[in-house]
Amino acid sequence: MQAALITIGDEILSGNTVDTNSTYIAEKLKNIGIKTVQIFTISDEIETIKKTMKSAFEVADLVITTGGLGPTRDDKTKIAFKEFFNDELVLDEVTFEHLKQLLTKRNRESLVDLNKDQAVVLSKATILQNFNGTAPCQMVEENGKIAICLPGVPFEVKPFMKNQIIPFLQEKFDLPFIETRIISVVEYPESLLAKDISSWEDQLPKPITLSYLPIANRVKLKLTNVGFDLAKIKNELQIEVDKVLPIIKGKVIATNYEGIEDILHDLLIEKNLSLSVAESCTGGALSQLISSVSGASQYFVASIIPYDYQQKIKILGVLAETIKSKTVVSEEVAQEMSFGLMNLFQTDIALSTTGVAGPNSDEFNSEIGTVFYSIRVKDFEQTFRLFLPHLERKDFMSFVSQKVLQDLIAILVKTA
Amino acid sequence: MQAALITIGDEILSGNTVDTNSTYIAEKLKNIGIKTVQIFTISDEIETIKKTMKSAFEVADLVITTGGLGPTRDDKTKIAFKEFFNDELVLDEVTFEHLKQLLTKRNRESLVDLNKDQAVVLSKATILQNFNGTAPCQMVEENGKIAICLPGVPFEVKPFMKNQIIPFLQEKFDLPFIETRIISVVEYPESLLAKDISSWEDQLPKPITLSYLPIANRVKLKLTNVGFDLAKIKNELQIEVDKVLPIIKGKVIATNYEGIEDILHDLLIEKNLSLSVAESCTGGALSQLISSVSGASQYFVASIIPYDYQQKIKILGVLAETIKSKTVVSEEVAQEMSFGLMNLFQTDIALSTTGVAGPNSDEFNSEIGTVFYSIRVKDFEQTFRLFLPHLERKDFMSFVSQKVLQDLIAILVKTA
Repeated sequence: MQAALITIGDEILSGNTVDTNSTYIAEKLKNIGIKTVQIFTISDEIETIKKTMKSAFEVADLVITTGGLGPTRDDKTKIAFKEFFNDELVLDEVTFEHLKQLLTKRNRESLVDLNKDQAVVLSKATILQNFNGTAPCQMVEENGKIAICLPGVPFEVKPFMKNQIIPFLQEKFDLPFIETRIISVVEYPESLLAKDISSWEDQLPKPITLSYLPIANRVKLKLTNVGFDLAKIKNELQIEVDKVLPIIKGKVIATNYEGIEDILHDLLIEKNLSLSVAESCTGGALSQLISSVSGASQYFVASIIPYDYQQKIKILGVLAETIKSKTVVSEEVAQEMSFGLMNLFQTDIALSTTGVAGPNSDEFNSEIGTVFYSIRVKDFEQTFRLFLPHLERKDFMSFVSQKVLQDLIAILVKTA
Repeated sequence: MQAALITIGDEILSGNTVDTNSTYIAEKLKNIGIKTVQIFTISDEIETIKKTMKSAFEVADLVITTGGLGPTRDDKTKIAFKEFFNDELVLDEVTFEHLKQLLTKRNRESLVDLNKDQAVVLSKATILQNFNGTAPCQMVEENGKIAICLPGVPFEVKPFMKNQIIPFLQEKFDLPFIETRIISVVEYPESLLAKDISSWEDQLPKPITLSYLPIANRVKLKLTNVGFDLAKIKNELQIEVDKVLPIIKGKVIATNYEGIEDILHDLLIEKNLSLSVAESCTGGALSQLISSVSGASQYFVASIIPYDYQQKIKILGVLAETIKSKTVVSEEVAQEMSFGLMNLFQTDIALSTTGVAGPNSDEFNSEIGTVFYSIRVKDFEQTFRLFLPHLERKDFMSFVSQKVLQDLIAILVKTA
């Protein structure tokens, strides 16, 4: 089964908002064996929505729209659905009752009338109630094809998908499993990697596919298999992983998981190691990456963000003399930060970053895009330097955070 | 002038990667008066790429593709371009020379042969060299329409857009200005807000448009105007802002800026206030939001992330007795955290968060989705509680971070 997604809303076209809904929906669909073949992002115009629905149904049997259902007048999805399906709009009492209860629970009874329109739905539609907002989900089936319209707010979309739509689709259709394996390769230029594994890639049995996903200095080799026998497709993937590993050995830091933070999670629990962070130029990004995994409290003890360099001295015990002689963006300061940090929190691992994210330099006129980071694992310490002047501020923070964890994992894997 | 963007790559369709390129490109185009009317996300297949280019040119004069230019074989954009424009591929010596220099600079001379294909380009194309990767940008003009193909890596896309493509488009076309004003409204349900300002909205003179962008508990009212006389369109927007403000007064925290962190930046500098953060359940997200603005070092002193609750006692001086009697997720602990924090860093403002992001609870069995946060501004202190069980872990962290800054700003604006 193939799906197409339609994201409706000028806020994405004008570059205000990143479309995270499509990513979420596509991933959830893939997990139950439905492949998303196209995503359309369009403006809130009735004719455009109708035309796009037509195009979407040309490539897919399942079309999911997000957005354009709010109570304000810039929202036109419902009317487009009505015209597309030649239907009429009717007030649904069950939906209205649900809406009233929701608003009452939120002490917003006074808004019931203003939101009544949200209970007006297509007469042919199956309605799924919204427990996190006012617009319900409508599903219309016609000629074996399904259109589903969802609101645009991500925290409404997610529970709709997870709790209602995915179970509905699984119940209704006989869907294959889609399995993936991710091999994380580091310090291996993509072109060289592609050359070195080309004969292996050539022999991959159908329907297994391979893609290359670079992130920071890591390349994720992603193998995907599809079929109705889960054990069989998993086994087929394992066979291919076992074949390719000897070719790229020494460069592989994990053979599972997308996220570097997930790889770290399992590794630290397995090795029973605790971790602390002192980050300045990454401003919280490294800590957030680590803490984004549920269960991080098993190893993540604490972070210090000494954003004002004086706090490096005060909290972490970096020597004022070192900052004066080497400047705050230096190997020595990174080392003293991780040293002070390990003493402070008594963790097995201490990570520190010091650098200049830009676009403006610091009071020491450090070169923008420079970062030193120190990785301390018990008695072992290694300092790294990166120079990333081409990265914008947030990308710099995110790249450095990825790279620090990548290097930490490489160290932990080697010293296993 | 209207643009359409085509994002090529299975990694977005499979839900692996969020498409940030389109957001970036659309925003940059909008800033020079080019409106993005549609974004297509499609798979790496030659026929699909060609078909989509055709659709894209039906709605736009400018089509920009990203992705599908890497050295690995899952990349097919160049061939699609060649067939679409009925052109041939030729080795471009200038590009090859540039590529050799880039790889030499990176100590990757050995990869020159493997990447030589990257210098093979359409014979009709104008080439823009890539200073951050191996795939050049190609531009083809035909019948007054322009197709531009870019690599997919965001940190290659950004400098291409900013340094080469935007200046090229501005030089080539006589483009209007697009100006926006953002009014940030808090504690005002969207449906009620829409009702209260409906008569004002009705009288908005063309071509001014209004959209509602909700984020956390804030609604951003976005006014957009377009025209060739910058002073005039700015003034027209100011007139509308002045008209609507009296209707919604008391609920407005800013009349400029998208980001809550940008509003904070100006406010803290204007009021000469310093800030520190102690965050546990937000795991770094709040600090990262604050530090994501260049210049944050002027007011952001430091953060503590006491992820292990013992560190709340050790570093922030929270009383063990308070944690024992009230549990770690409590109003009292939030207050003691911000108190200890203000003492530690001697800042004017101290923010603290304590809660459970889920999906698993903590050792105190606190209710998942609960968070207390304390905002301390000199002698003033206020504690807030949120209950967000419907949010996934990262969304919880991000929502709480937004809301903390939103409430801080509301406090600062009121006590102005």
